[in-house]
Amino acid sequence: MRNLPDSVSIREVGPRDGLQSESPIPTADKIRLIDALGRTGLRRIEAVSFVHPRAIPQMADADEVWAGMTRVDGIAYSALAPNSRGAARALDAGFDIVEVVVSASDTHNRKNVNRSTAESLDDITGLITTLHDGGATVEVIVATSFGCPYEGDTSVERVAGIIDRVVGDGADRVAFGDTTGMATPRRVDELLTRVRGDHPDVPMLLHFHNTRGTALANVMTALDHGVTEFDSSVGGLGGCPYAPGASGNLATEELVHMLHDCGIETGVDLDALIEVAELAEKLVGRTLPSGVLRAGPRTRLTATD
Amino acid sequence: MRNLPDSVSIREVGPRDGLQSESPIPTADKIRLIDALGRTGLRRIEAVSFVHPRAIPQMADADEVWAGMTRVDGIAYSALAPNSRGAARALDAGFDIVEVVVSASDTHNRKNVNRSTAESLDDITGLITTLHDGGATVEVIVATSFGCPYEGDTSVERVAGIIDRVVGDGADRVAFGDTTGMATPRRVDELLTRVRGDHPDVPMLLHFHNTRGTALANVMTALDHGVTEFDSSVGGLGGCPYAPGASGNLATEELVHMLHDCGIETGVDLDALIEVAELAEKLVGRTLPSGVLRAGPRTRLTATD
Repeated sequence: MRNLPDSVSIREVGPRDGLQSESPIPTADKIRLIDALGRTGLRRIEAVSFVHPRAIPQMADADEVWAGMTRVDGIAYSALAPNSRGAARALDAGFDIVEVVVSASDTHNRKNVNRSTAESLDDITGLITTLHDGGATVEVIVATSFGCPYEGDTSVERVAGIIDRVVGDGADRVAFGDTTGMATPRRVDELLTRVRGDHPDVPMLLHFHNTRGTALANVMTALDHGVTEFDSSVGGLGGCPYAPGASGNLATEELVHMLHDCGIETGVDLDALIEVAELAEKLVGRTLPSGVLRAGPRTRLTATD
Repeated sequence: MRNLPDSVSIREVGPRDGLQSESPIPTADKIRLIDALGRTGLRRIEAVSFVHPRAIPQMADADEVWAGMTRVDGIAYSALAPNSRGAARALDAGFDIVEVVVSASDTHNRKNVNRSTAESLDDITGLITTLHDGGATVEVIVATSFGCPYEGDTSVERVAGIIDRVVGDGADRVAFGDTTGMATPRRVDELLTRVRGDHPDVPMLLHFHNTRGTALANVMTALDHGVTEFDSSVGGLGGCPYAPGASGNLATEELVHMLHDCGIETGVDLDALIEVAELAEKLVGRTLPSGVLRAGPRTRLTATD
């Protein structure tokens, strides 16, 4: 087999990235979901987003969720902050890991925050300083890294330029978002070939959507490049509210299921995780797209009558 | 990028493997589906199965379908024959490419045809002779090659032994069926590592289900091993009628979409294929699980208003 890592670090993004594009659910249900995820062995959870309630009403209760949930020792909880107001709220709430976002596509960035990519990068320069001063580490998420639903292909050079810029500004980590599921193994290969060498010490995380079925093939390609950090969403909750036609983050249980069968540890109890996916499905009230949720893991056998 | 092939040969199995586990549809609709597939650039189509109508009523009209459809020059049409009666019918109908099946799992084989794997292999010895005498080439499909829903893991040695046996008996080609979507990149790697070297001149085809999201990751792994032939089913039609919980052949448009973006030719017109997937969805009257059918290819852009 290819040279696979011994372990992979999964960041669960269902409570934030997932729920922000589902119909709003009560605060108590969000807390229930995060607390349940905290008992599965997951060690990183993106808990909330400090975005303006008018922009994303699903996240209006971020402070209440964070105050109400049980913080498990050993789990790194993070928050997304779209701007300086959000960064201040995240720091006030006590988060020490904060994500900020910029889209590689100008059009997508404007649709998202009504600013150009360049303007958002200028904002991020300031956000990094603010967050560092407040004692938090900062991850910059580059949305539409593998393609934009409005502009089409995203050039590898454009993404590489953004990474150079934010790393120069002090970003502690970077993430590549496949916002609407346009990544394929070739795109993953081309981007990682271009950017890994320039920043060998900067942790890089990949965030795939399974919109066109390629998410796990993309993960395998990223593993070939030595990437060992991935986002995924329990049950496949979510999509992207700004991208019509987008559907489905990679489901955490599909990721864990494949990795474990390939001999790669994640620390996650798959059976417990599937139970949380069942809970997530109940809380959002729609059928979630996860195959492992539907069919169970390959080890779940059928009785012969 | 890994050492990818220039082209891949896809066998479309929707009309047979797909429709045999959907609710029965009229003969005229089957003909319409096959004829539409014949205009997409696909060069291999599994058209029908000559199985007893009591076993699989969906295939009761195999002769009528074959007689009524338009046979396109340059397309290799094949039929599945489960036994000597089916082989005789396939030859009578004029098929010169015929598939026979055995399951690597004894329990699955008994559920399927009420015989042990060993008994089916003895039958296949005779079928190969009969079909060769009738002027047809024979592919042996090894079902449950990557796991059995009743028995669990399938040992690589067991599959290797079956391949040795049928190749010794004169099989022209072999296929590995991931009947209920239990394959992962590791399982594909282990099996191909074991069997490719012993039979370098025997064409090998892989048949994946996307039950647990791994189908395209498995395809990429098989490409690494030099395999360039895959089954898939338009729209993701079908599953396996004998395997509870199974869902979804790999959708042909998801396979074509990823391969093309990776620079691998298939000869298929993706837009035309997606139209046939829409037709297939209409004919079977249920939502099919294909992401590329839902979201369109990554090149289909969204207007910015």
